[in-house]
Amino acid sequence: MAWNKPLQPGDLRYDERGFIPAVVQQHDTGEVLMVAWMTRETVLQTLKLRETVFYSRSRREPWHKGETSGNTQRVVEVVADCDADVLLIKVDQQGDGVACHTGARTCFHNAVDA
Amino acid sequence: MAWNKPLQPGDLRYDERGFIPAVVQQHDTGEVLMVAWMTRETVLQTLKLRETVFYSRSRREPWHKGETSGNTQRVVEVVADCDADVLLIKVDQQGDGVACHTGARTCFHNAVDA
Repeated sequence: MAWNKPLQPGDLRYDERGFIPAVVQQHDTGEVLMVAWMTRETVLQTLKLRETVFYSRSRREPWHKGETSGNTQRVVEVVADCDADVLLIKVDQQGDGVACHTGARTCFHNAVDA
Repeated sequence: MAWNKPLQPGDLRYDERGFIPAVVQQHDTGEVLMVAWMTRETVLQTLKLRETVFYSRSRREPWHKGETSGNTQRVVEVVADCDADVLLIKVDQQGDGVACHTGARTCFHNAVDA
């Protein structure tokens, strides 16, 4: 698909439960900080607020990342993939510079091997 | 969760259909190239082969990326996130250096705005 103008939240392809995965990347270093889920509503909130708002599938409610901890993520750019069913959100991680609830910089810190 | 030794494919948390999302990143530039799905079997194949093997949910079969096009992805590192339900696969994109079936370097090339 080729798009001449930016996609809007309603143009994205959500799964059968209404969710789309969002990869969050630190815009300047390229670090992948986390992956979380959004709904059409929280994609719109993210774009309007310019901070990431996810949807917690366990708590079943929108989740404004860092609202209590101060570790918000300022949105630099939002890009969808070729079939518009995954988002890449380039951010500037605020607060302590920590994205993970474990206190680590990034959620990706567990090596996998066979 | 803290892990003292590498996770193995059987330690990962797959969804109710047996899938785990895999974010593929060019190891040196940090570019996020694509997101695709894996099963326990294709995680194991990826680790053994040291090239990405996904699971095509539409074709319902394993998919060795680049097997026909030559645009394979050499695996540099595989990391799981804090709750072990997303993979980050750092690769060296081979062939034409193109990850997307559209011929683009990365699948993420559609701007999103409100």
